[in-house]
Parts: sequence; structure tokens; C-alpha cells
Amino acid sequence: MTGPDPAVAATRLAVRQHFADVPEGGLVLVACSGGTDSLALAAALAFEAPRSGLRGGAVVVDHGLQEGSGAVAEQAAQTCRELGLSPVEVMVAEVRITGSGLEADARAARYKAIDAVADRVGASQVLLGHTRDDQAEQVLLGLSRGSGARSLSGMPLRRGRFVRPLLALPRATTTAACEALGVQPWHDPHNEDPSFRRVRARRLLGALEGDLGPGFAAALARSADLLREDADYLESLAIRAREELPATAGDPGVDLQALAALPRAIRTRVWRILAAEAGAPISDVTAAHVESLDALLTSWHGQGPLHVPGGIAVARTGDAIRFSPIRETADAH
Amino acid sequence: MTGPDPAVAATRLAVRQHFADVPEGGLVLVACSGGTDSLALAAALAFEAPRSGLRGGAVVVDHGLQEGSGAVAEQAAQTCRELGLSPVEVMVAEVRITGSGLEADARAARYKAIDAVADRVGASQVLLGHTRDDQAEQVLLGLSRGSGARSLSGMPLRRGRFVRPLLALPRATTTAACEALGVQPWHDPHNEDPSFRRVRARRLLGALEGDLGPGFAAALARSADLLREDADYLESLAIRAREELPATAGDPGVDLQALAALPRAIRTRVWRILAAEAGAPISDVTAAHVESLDALLTSWHGQGPLHVPGGIAVARTGDAIRFSPIRETADAH
Repeated sequence: MTGPDPAVAATRLAVRQHFADVPEGGLVLVACSGGTDSLALAAALAFEAPRSGLRGGAVVVDHGLQEGSGAVAEQAAQTCRELGLSPVEVMVAEVRITGSGLEADARAARYKAIDAVADRVGASQVLLGHTRDDQAEQVLLGLSRGSGARSLSGMPLRRGRFVRPLLALPRATTTAACEALGVQPWHDPHNEDPSFRRVRARRLLGALEGDLGPGFAAALARSADLLREDADYLESLAIRAREELPATAGDPGVDLQALAALPRAIRTRVWRILAAEAGAPISDVTAAHVESLDALLTSWHGQGPLHVPGGIAVARTGDAIRFSPIRETADAH
Repeated sequence: MTGPDPAVAATRLAVRQHFADVPEGGLVLVACSGGTDSLALAAALAFEAPRSGLRGGAVVVDHGLQEGSGAVAEQAAQTCRELGLSPVEVMVAEVRITGSGLEADARAARYKAIDAVADRVGASQVLLGHTRDDQAEQVLLGLSRGSGARSLSGMPLRRGRFVRPLLALPRATTTAACEALGVQPWHDPHNEDPSFRRVRARRLLGALEGDLGPGFAAALARSADLLREDADYLESLAIRAREELPATAGDPGVDLQALAALPRAIRTRVWRILAAEAGAPISDVTAAHVESLDALLTSWHGQGPLHVPGGIAVARTGDAIRFSPIRETADAH
């Protein structure tokens, strides 16, 4: 008897390694688009779940953004059923256009839909099909924004019940696994559309691999792991530092001297925490915003209140930094 | 009266901003290769130094690695003299081939030669011509190695008496400054030789700028600044953590429990400090070495001693981690 194809074995092992936290008889869902990565993941889950005393199911999200997306979703669901997954739920996501870009809006809608299904069917874990190549693309896109360790740290292996078992495997493995198993992935035409930054990033990674050496994508993913550890730790220190900041008497504000005494690596993160507390959408607060906030301490020359996203004014008055809603709503954005 | 060309003005302002730390009448050297960046820097120094009550000089390093390098160095020195710099010293660097690559060996020889000249002529500062584009290339090369915040943080603005005034300016500015001043830079054929990784990185940056948006190089440099703050702070915490590690009784070693109790972001850096204390050349200790050292704590299954560069064995024995020279010198490398 020969074992399974090495690529199939690799995806199965990757899935199995995350079962320890699932209770006996618990349900693990795979979020399946019908594409190569999530289909390879679905097949691995269908194989492994019953062998570990667990149930494997699937959730297929129909974004409704492309002609015929309903048929694509139904086909993906059908493949998941044929693989033996149950339940298999198709969910229509309502993409709310927020101005953060179509990719971001679709992603937000997708996670919301998946979460709703997971709650309804009582899933302990939801597996996502991101590979090492997706991780490298994510880091490259973070780099193009000129952002710090958090943005460059890519996607985490786990966050809550979401798990990315394939994050250490190259896309070549999921492609080979689908071929070996004879499952037919759907090829999203969006993945070939260079108007998407992610698609351009993917093509550039190919050029970088060719020119700086094979393994560039793996190297990016490794850097991301190291930076994620740094970001996690520095953020935990920043949360503590923020809690220990003395409030100013009378009016709500943050003590200037205490803030200025923090090391820069912590202070830049405390600025983000303070902005978030005041109601700023944290992902809209850029390094440039933080830089101008910090200038209230490091190059004070009586500058007026700054505005941060979410319609928030930040002013230095006396011994304190104060966050408040911008009065003229015309100024807010 | 019209002011100077904007590019010339930008290089002069950049140089002037670092004069505060130089004593009255002190000597500032520029390390000049005769290339665009260092020539623009030399011109800016020649203009600014006397206006700030300082002396501006130059050191030209001849690596002797290319046919006619002596003539190139002499030409660069001549241009520096014509700009009004004094003293102008030409120094032949002795490149010692160590196996770390020609670029690294030439760099080590260059810094040694520059340091010797700076000592001899009593220079307070040595200016280096690296631009924002060099910084971006450095970060991209760090990424291709899959390394952590320190490698990705690129070159510092200052280290000891070495200063990089142009680090925030694009190469386009130094090119424009040379043109405006009518100085003729030397074009190093090595800069066109794709057998050098740095040259390939430079070309890729052009592709990245084109595809992910202009400003990619600037974004990389900005990421580097943020990561450098993180790396500096985390390293300072790691140094303190290492000092507080209890030694084990009797034999020199590091207490296992205390090491394991450190957060990963600190522990990976403490491993590097411990390896350096034991005599490992720190730049040869890779993330993979640190990973296997950490496995002595996190996935202990009785593994034998590990080897780290510098001929050092690291073993877990009882309650301690011990670093010692490898006995069989044949194993050392």
C-alpha cells in the first residue's frame, strides 16, 4: 500500500495539527470559495475530521459581486458535500461599500457572514485557506504602505476561532493536492485582474523570487512571524503603559510629561490606543497621523488641534493632551 | 538674486542639520567614492562647513578591486580638492576575503580604512552618502533573508561619528544636485553588474515602484525607521533581561526556567546576546540558529548539543543552558 500524494499528506497534517483545541465531537468548518487553496483545505478536513472524532463542515460565501457568483458558490458547496463535509452552508454576504476599497469591504462582509454561520451551527473552529504565498503578498502590500511591525506581520495563524492551517505551505502544495485528488478548483477571474493591488503584488513576488533567489516568499513569511512576535509584545507593553498614564485632574486628558517619558516604540502605540479610545477607526490611523501627534510632544511650537480619522480633534492644552469630537461637522471625514 | 537649485539646497540643508554636535572649528569628513551620492554630499559639505565655522575634508577609499581603481580614487580626490575640501586623503583599503561575500568584505575594509583616516586627522564626524534608495535596497535585501526587525531596519542615521545626512533624500536629488553644480560623478560599473544582489534589488525596486505605486522606496524607508525604533527598544529590554538572568551554581550556565519565562520577542534576542558572549560572530547567527536554540526550551526531546557559528556548542544539561567551545576543531567553521 502506498501512502497519499505528498502534497495531500502535507495539507492533512497541517489541518490535523490544530485539532487539539476542538472538543470531542466538535464541529470544524472550512471557509471555502471553491478556489485551489480552500478546496485543498476542504478535502483535508473531510479526510481528517472523522478520523479524530470530529465533524467537518463548510461555509461558502457568495459575495454577489460577480456575474454568476451564485452558481460558483453552489458548485463549491456541491464539491464540499461530495467530499463528505456536513453541514455545508451557502451564505450571501452583503458587501457594504465604505470607501476602504472593494477588497477590504468584501473581506469585512465575508468574515461577518462566516461568523454568523459559525455561531448558528455551533462551530468550534473555522479554517481559512491562506497559504504562505498569501502571507508574502500581505507583507509586500504592508511594505508598500510604509507601515510598522503590525502591518508587516501579516496574518496570524490563529485569531479566536479562525485558524489558517496552510500558512506555512506554499501555494504549489495546494495546487498539487487538488490535482492529486482530482478536485476541480474554480479560478477566480479577479485573481488575474491587475487593477487589484493584490494581483500586482502576486506577480511582483514571482519577479522577486526569480531575481533575489527562490525562497523570497518564504523569507517574507518568516520575517512576518518574527515581526508579529515583536508587535504582540510591544502592544502588550503599550496597553499596560496606557493604563498607567495618569489622567489629568478635572477635564479628561492625558498627562503630557508621562506620555513624553515613554520610549518612542511604546509611545507611538499608546497614541494609537488613545485615538481608538476616542473613537478613531484604528485601521485608518496611519503612521503619518501618529507622527504628527507625536510632534505635539517632540516639536511643540504652539501648533493648533490636529484632526485624526473619525472626526476627532487632538489638542495640547497646558499639561495635557486632549481628544475631543470636532465641532464643525463639515470638517469631519 | 535667485537661490540655489532646489536639489542643491536640499543636500546642503541635510548636511547642516547635523553640525550641532561638531565642536567649533572641528573637522567633518565626507567619505567620497566619486559617485553621484557622495559627490553631491562632498559639494554640500564644502559649501556649508566654512559657513558654520567648521572645516570640511574628504577621505577617498581605493578598494583596489577594479582595474584603474587608483585613477578613479585620484580623480575623486581631485574633485574634492576643487570643491575646496581639505584635507583630502586617499586610502587604499585591504579587502580581506572572509567568505561573507565580496560586498560585505569590501564594506568592512572601507569602514576600517575610513576610521583610520578619521583618527589620524582628528575628524569629529564622517558623512556617508547613502540615500533613501540605498535604504530601500537594504530593507529589500533584509527581507530576502527572512530576518527580523533589526535586519529590516536598514542603516541608522547615525552610529558613533558616522552620519548619513542624505538618508531621507531620494537618489534623484543627488543626481539633480550634481547636474546643477556641474560636477561629474564617476559611474561604477559594479552598479550595473547584475551578479551583485544589491544591483538586482535596485532594479526590482524600480519594478515595485511602477506596479505598487510611486513611493514604494519611500515606504520601505519609512518602515525601516519604525522597525529600527522597535529593534532598539526590544534590544535594550533584552540586554536588561540578560543581566537579570540568574547564573547557575558551580558551572557557568544560564538558568533554564528564567530563560523560558521571558516573552519570545525578548528571548530570541537574549539568545543572540548569549551566543555573542560565547564568542559567536553575531552577524552570522541567523533566525534559523535562534529557532533551534529556542527549541531547547520549547520542544525539548533530549536533543544533543547544537552548534552555532564561531565553533560554539550549546547544550541543555539539567537546569541550565551551557555554551562551550566545540572540542573537535574539525567541526568548527
